[in-house]
Amino acid sequence: MNTTVARKKIAEFLLEDIGTGDVCSSAVFGDQTLEKEAMFVAKSSGIVAGVDVAKLVFEELGDVKFEAHIEDGCGMRPGDVIARVHADVKVLLAGERVALNLLQRMSAVALNTKLAIEKLGDPTIRICDTRKTAPGLRIFDKAAVRIGGGYNHRFGLYDALMLKDNHIAFSGSITASVKKLRSKIGHTQKIEVEVTNEDQVLEAVDAGVDIIMFDNCAPSQVKRMRVLVPEYIIIECSGSITLENLRQFANTGVDYISLGFLTHSVKALDISFQALDF
Amino acid sequence: MNTTVARKKIAEFLLEDIGTGDVCSSAVFGDQTLEKEAMFVAKSSGIVAGVDVAKLVFEELGDVKFEAHIEDGCGMRPGDVIARVHADVKVLLAGERVALNLLQRMSAVALNTKLAIEKLGDPTIRICDTRKTAPGLRIFDKAAVRIGGGYNHRFGLYDALMLKDNHIAFSGSITASVKKLRSKIGHTQKIEVEVTNEDQVLEAVDAGVDIIMFDNCAPSQVKRMRVLVPEYIIIECSGSITLENLRQFANTGVDYISLGFLTHSVKALDISFQALDF
Amino acid sequence: MNTTVARKKIAEFLLEDIGTGDVCSSAVFGDQTLEKEAMFVAKSSGIVAGVDVAKLVFEELGDVKFEAHIEDGCGMRPGDVIARVHADVKVLLAGERVALNLLQRMSAVALNTKLAIEKLGDPTIRICDTRKTAPGLRIFDKAAVRIGGGYNHRFGLYDALMLKDNHIAFSGSITASVKKLRSKIGHTQKIEVEVTNEDQVLEAVDAGVDIIMFDNCAPSQVKRMRVLVPEYIIIECSGSITLENLRQFANTGVDYISLGFLTHSVKALDISFQALDF
Amino acid sequence: MNTTVARKKIAEFLLEDIGTGDVCSSAVFGDQTLEKEAMFVAKSSGIVAGVDVAKLVFEELGDVKFEAHIEDGCGMRPGDVIARVHADVKVLLAGERVALNLLQRMSAVALNTKLAIEKLGDPTIRICDTRKTAPGLRIFDKAAVRIGGGYNHRFGLYDALMLKDNHIAFSGSITASVKKLRSKIGHTQKIEVEVTNEDQVLEAVDAGVDIIMFDNCAPSQVKRMRVLVPEYIIIECSGSITLENLRQFANTGVDYISLGFLTHSVKALDISFQALDF
Amino acid sequence: MNTTVARKKIAEFLLEDIGTGDVCSSAVFGDQTLEKEAMFVAKSSGIVAGVDVAKLVFEELGDVKFEAHIEDGCGMRPGDVIARVHADVKVLLAGERVALNLLQRMSAVALNTKLAIEKLGDPTIRICDTRKTAPGLRIFDKAAVRIGGGYNHRFGLYDALMLKDNHIAFSGSITASVKKLRSKIGHTQKIEVEVTNEDQVLEAVDAGVDIIMFDNCAPSQVKRMRVLVPEYIIIECSGSITLENLRQFANTGVDYISLGFLTHSVKALDISFQALDF
Amino acid sequence: MNTTVARKKIAEFLLEDIGTGDVCSSAVFGDQTLEKEAMFVAKSSGIVAGVDVAKLVFEELGDVKFEAHIEDGCGMRPGDVIARVHADVKVLLAGERVALNLLQRMSAVALNTKLAIEKLGDPTIRICDTRKTAPGLRIFDKAAVRIGGGYNHRFGLYDALMLKDNHIAFSGSITASVKKLRSKIGHTQKIEVEVTNEDQVLEAVDAGVDIIMFDNCAPSQVKRMRVLVPEYIIIECSGSITLENLRQFANTGVDYISLGFLTHSVKALDISFQALDF
Repeated sequence: MNTTVARKKIAEFLLEDIGTGDVCSSAVFGDQTLEKEAMFVAKSSGIVAGVDVAKLVFEELGDVKFEAHIEDGCGMRPGDVIARVHADVKVLLAGERVALNLLQRMSAVALNTKLAIEKLGDPTIRICDTRKTAPGLRIFDKAAVRIGGGYNHRFGLYDALMLKDNHIAFSGSITASVKKLRSKIGHTQKIEVEVTNEDQVLEAVDAGVDIIMFDNCAPSQVKRMRVLVPEYIIIECSGSITLENLRQFANTGVDYISLGFLTHSVKALDISFQALDF
Repeated sequence: MNTTVARKKIAEFLLEDIGTGDVCSSAVFGDQTLEKEAMFVAKSSGIVAGVDVAKLVFEELGDVKFEAHIEDGCGMRPGDVIARVHADVKVLLAGERVALNLLQRMSAVALNTKLAIEKLGDPTIRICDTRKTAPGLRIFDKAAVRIGGGYNHRFGLYDALMLKDNHIAFSGSITASVKKLRSKIGHTQKIEVEVTNEDQVLEAVDAGVDIIMFDNCAPSQVKRMRVLVPEYIIIECSGSITLENLRQFANTGVDYISLGFLTHSVKALDISFQALDF
Repeated sequence: MNTTVARKKIAEFLLEDIGTGDVCSSAVFGDQTLEKEAMFVAKSSGIVAGVDVAKLVFEELGDVKFEAHIEDGCGMRPGDVIARVHADVKVLLAGERVALNLLQRMSAVALNTKLAIEKLGDPTIRICDTRKTAPGLRIFDKAAVRIGGGYNHRFGLYDALMLKDNHIAFSGSITASVKKLRSKIGHTQKIEVEVTNEDQVLEAVDAGVDIIMFDNCAPSQVKRMRVLVPEYIIIECSGSITLENLRQFANTGVDYISLGFLTHSVKALDISFQALDF
Repeated sequence: MNTTVARKKIAEFLLEDIGTGDVCSSAVFGDQTLEKEAMFVAKSSGIVAGVDVAKLVFEELGDVKFEAHIEDGCGMRPGDVIARVHADVKVLLAGERVALNLLQRMSAVALNTKLAIEKLGDPTIRICDTRKTAPGLRIFDKAAVRIGGGYNHRFGLYDALMLKDNHIAFSGSITASVKKLRSKIGHTQKIEVEVTNEDQVLEAVDAGVDIIMFDNCAPSQVKRMRVLVPEYIIIECSGSITLENLRQFANTGVDYISLGFLTHSVKALDISFQALDF
Repeated sequence: MNTTVARKKIAEFLLEDIGTGDVCSSAVFGDQTLEKEAMFVAKSSGIVAGVDVAKLVFEELGDVKFEAHIEDGCGMRPGDVIARVHADVKVLLAGERVALNLLQRMSAVALNTKLAIEKLGDPTIRICDTRKTAPGLRIFDKAAVRIGGGYNHRFGLYDALMLKDNHIAFSGSITASVKKLRSKIGHTQKIEVEVTNEDQVLEAVDAGVDIIMFDNCAPSQVKRMRVLVPEYIIIECSGSITLENLRQFANTGVDYISLGFLTHSVKALDISFQALDF
Repeated sequence: MNTTVARKKIAEFLLEDIGTGDVCSSAVFGDQTLEKEAMFVAKSSGIVAGVDVAKLVFEELGDVKFEAHIEDGCGMRPGDVIARVHADVKVLLAGERVALNLLQRMSAVALNTKLAIEKLGDPTIRICDTRKTAPGLRIFDKAAVRIGGGYNHRFGLYDALMLKDNHIAFSGSITASVKKLRSKIGHTQKIEVEVTNEDQVLEAVDAGVDIIMFDNCAPSQVKRMRVLVPEYIIIECSGSITLENLRQFANTGVDYISLGFLTHSVKALDISFQALDF
């Protein structure tokens, strides 16, 4: 993650929440510095992701001592102290919500990823994400996927080329589209094509793409289509794959399974931020 | 929603996704304009939210004709056409993902809200949101709650004052804190206090707050605490309330129930964007 | 005040003044650091406001030692040293004008406020500001009002609702407008209505607003209208109230008097910035 | 004025005022467009400045018909209609305050300028402004000075060089400083020196500066110092000059009198914005 | 090119040049619109690149009619009219310099590219650019390379992975570095390694990279190293290749030659902007 | 140079190059800090310019020790170490390209300037730059000209007034244009006029301009025109002057020669960045 970009985004998130000022804390605690301590405490089981990001949140607001007790990628259980933060009370209270919103979301995305890997149970297949991230949060969502053990698909329309269903519908042909791409793009970018049937698989192979994505195919169909593709082409599988049916895609011989729900359907992990000085 | 702000945010979301350029579409379709049409199609049941926002996404990219078939707040069923978009094919393909990410999230938040209202089944109690929104997306998340029939709690630390558990822990007293607030803040901002037991309720009432929030209280406790509060003070209930136990809070006499899961635990509604010119 | 926002604004103000560079100081003093000291000296009597802001100005430009001799809110007399600043001579010269412009304006706003409170001579009525601030300077103008002993009205259209003359003219009715508001807004925002006669007062009371503002009413009319309003509704008085006639509004029983001139008619207090090393 | 810059600033001013949304108007008037008309009406006498800027404010918010009845620079009397604005009611209400704040301030700055010119009564001397503008508003403040018949001094530290008292105090010598400047700066920038006595005048003349500013000198001293300066050097007079004593500086033979109060001490002209559809 | 990004950058370039305003044109031509026409005229031979960008420059400033007579990628000779622009005279004068600066630079980059292709004289080898672009101008520089017939290497550190000399020096080993990369990066990004000798070539092949770059190798060495690399790995050649020695790299069997001088050593093509209304 | 502005620009340049992250370095070197050292080494002869800017580049990315061995303005020969940088290896690798791009360009601009001064061989004439800079890089390009011993012409349309050929063509007359300017602009800005023949010279002199620029005139013509201009008016010479013919303009009696090629035709000086820890 580019921390310069992360810091800039965090500054925006804090502005969204604090606006013209945290009136309540200012009035109650005044201008003087009052050093206090609080901790992030897990209230559910899972995997921690975003503790480094939470640190950046408080650092944006003032001088802090931030001590992570559980590093990104490690497990947590209810009651575990994830991190302790020592700072002026106004910094603690102003950063609390943004830090929690990021930490709880990132941890949930990481857990989604970890569960997907476990459900699949096939270490030869990598789980990866999609562009179905919360708008504005892509670098955080994709970092969380990595923390959970997954891999990142492209970050946007600029860093890899993908002919999706609509491209093919509008352009009329995989072959012609790939030919155009090959004549115009340089050697550092890969071309992926989304296919839904065996004819398209063969067309994509002939066209010389780098990655073929089997879209919305049942496991049996995946296996049939897989054998049509030479080894040097990467195969990705996507569409209508859930935690429930993921196991069926094990041993299909694909290289990657991309899952939209890792980032578009996120149930925040329960984490609290508790004052230490009762 | 301030559409100027919304447009600015959408421009950032598009930049996040398109970066230096949609290389694939540029290479396949070239510089010439090629007018095409596509439509948003519901693939699950629910409530539409964000169709106006999706329109803004495409408008940011170029000239479009955007025709909404289902307005924000109306129901949708699988197969329903939500909107049709007519534009240069490169605009359609560049806006697709961001528009879907927003539309699917907002519709899910609206559905969360609608389901909560239905589960509760008590029209005298209003459902409202929290600050547990996706960072950077608060105006969209909160708009979706309104579309789903819910109400907005404060937008940030700047537009209403809330003494939460940590404030009280750090400051030591509800009474003293409210007194300080009253001596410093003007007449346009409300003061809310979070309480967890009857002593705190009484202290808050005496302190003269505008809103009391019963935090993490069982329905029976809520009822006991409710009677301690005069009519002119608004009562909000929050904490550990889920779709499953929400019904138990009906008829407790509170005015508002605020639910974090409306916006922090969102399962994207399934909506697709389909080329019309096969 | 959100110092992150203040710093961002100060950076813009400095850019406005320095642009591509302070050519004069660069040429005269060169690239080497030359530590010097200067001080802010009062040249008129009043109340200091903005000394913390002045500090932020210099900190934005480089390393400084800034020692405030008179804190925000304290009085000053001609000749008083308000603060001493020790820094590279180029930092002193580049920050001087922006710091003075803010300090002189804020001190003047604070003095306006203090004089208004003294003229009124009724401690049961609070003096507050309006949205008639210099565009872009609202957080500074409103901070200065607080420093002068006044209170802040809403910060913008987003943090409190006010039905003003034009709303009522366009919508046709206080009652209908308030009803719509109540059906749509949450519990954390207050509703204020601007009224000019007794009928409107009664209508506003019936509509159940939180605050009623008597606009452009003579003291005698204020007293007549005041008795129509129950205690739990806050009364604000505004319009055509000047330092000259303010005393007449004492003992009218209103809670707040809002004064546009505090921030829209500001005569900069005379303060100079003087090199110490003659 | 660079209207691109003006528009960007106006967008910021509107964001400052509207924030996350004009909740009141949205709730009362809903999403539908409701075309209404309002007008700016003078409530005091003076000179109009900023009517073009007011137009930009509303244009930033939506489609408007804006008809100026009094152009910038023309006089106004109480009751005069300055401009009429026709737009969606929500646009009218959201733009009203920012437009008024700018229009009232700019008109006041223009009037300050016009009064100064009249008081001085010496057409051979030009009145000009200073850098004592409201931070962030320099382009508007300086435009208003021009509209009022005055001239602009430099816009910042980047577009003309000025050795002020503190420069001379820190550097030790006018002669040495000007020599350094001449050796480093190009031919497109002028050098001005601030002097307070006859020795300094002679030193500045010898040093070959372009402009000499007599700082804080009485009219009699100005006349004595004036004769020491050859014709090709421009003479500016500044410091402690008020509307009251300005007349005494007539016929002193200086070229420019710069007045800080034009922009740092501004009493907003009274202008209202009135709905037409009662 | 993402035109939204291009427009944003152009706005910055115009701000850099116009700042607080084009004082000269405003004073000479006043506020009224005065429609005039001017044309871009070639004063040297070459290839046009940036005419679309020049159009965006003027569009940013106001209403214009822009008629391109020579499209991007087409040849030009002295005296050729490249484009005609019709607009308010102040728009023409304010946009002239920025438009020319971009057009002249982009045309020069395109010509560099075209000359390189011609010198090489081997259509089986593609000419491509590097990251040695003018900071802030990468999208324009790289667009110009494409217009000149070349191909784009990666846009930045984010869209393709390259182990350069310093990476290898710091990490100690190609093999270990590639292994780490493969274990962490997804399937959409390519890995390129920079090598300088045959041992490194073999190590890179074994490590399974996608692209091998022969850095600073003589043509004879290139040929020797080329045969060590299987067909499915792309070979790029770079370093110390100039227009003078480029021909020697023909028929070396490499796939791409990347040339820093295309964008880091640019001699602006001579193009003028001439008023039509003499 | 305003370092605040320089830092902001450098942050943008780094964002352009790093985008969502330096994936390669992150994967190879991990999150832990690994302190390494590298140095900028000259590979050609010339003059160093931009070493301070290179320092700012790395400082933007993290903690660094940056030791300049050759200061801006001093000479360099192949093999010379210009600076050493000690930092986390990821900081070194992420900053390398942007730092080099700036350093190589600025050094080339400085060398262009130095060579021009040497070729001219007339110390009574100053070499200066133009607005023909790379868009967005003006402050760096113009700083490099100063480092090379040249002088800066105006920075933009805002800090000096210039009637160029197109202004005169559109307005019809030098005399009328200068008169308008004099009636509207203040005393701190200079007026320059571009002339191409003796009639225009005389007209400009009569009009009372501050600077006259002889555009595209041969040395003999320059000499003829020079005598028509009184001493107090500065004379600048420009247009079609190259390193080759520059010597001919010596002893023509002009004050400044402005050269577009200093900044629009830049051949990057060869400088490398080498890891020290092989």
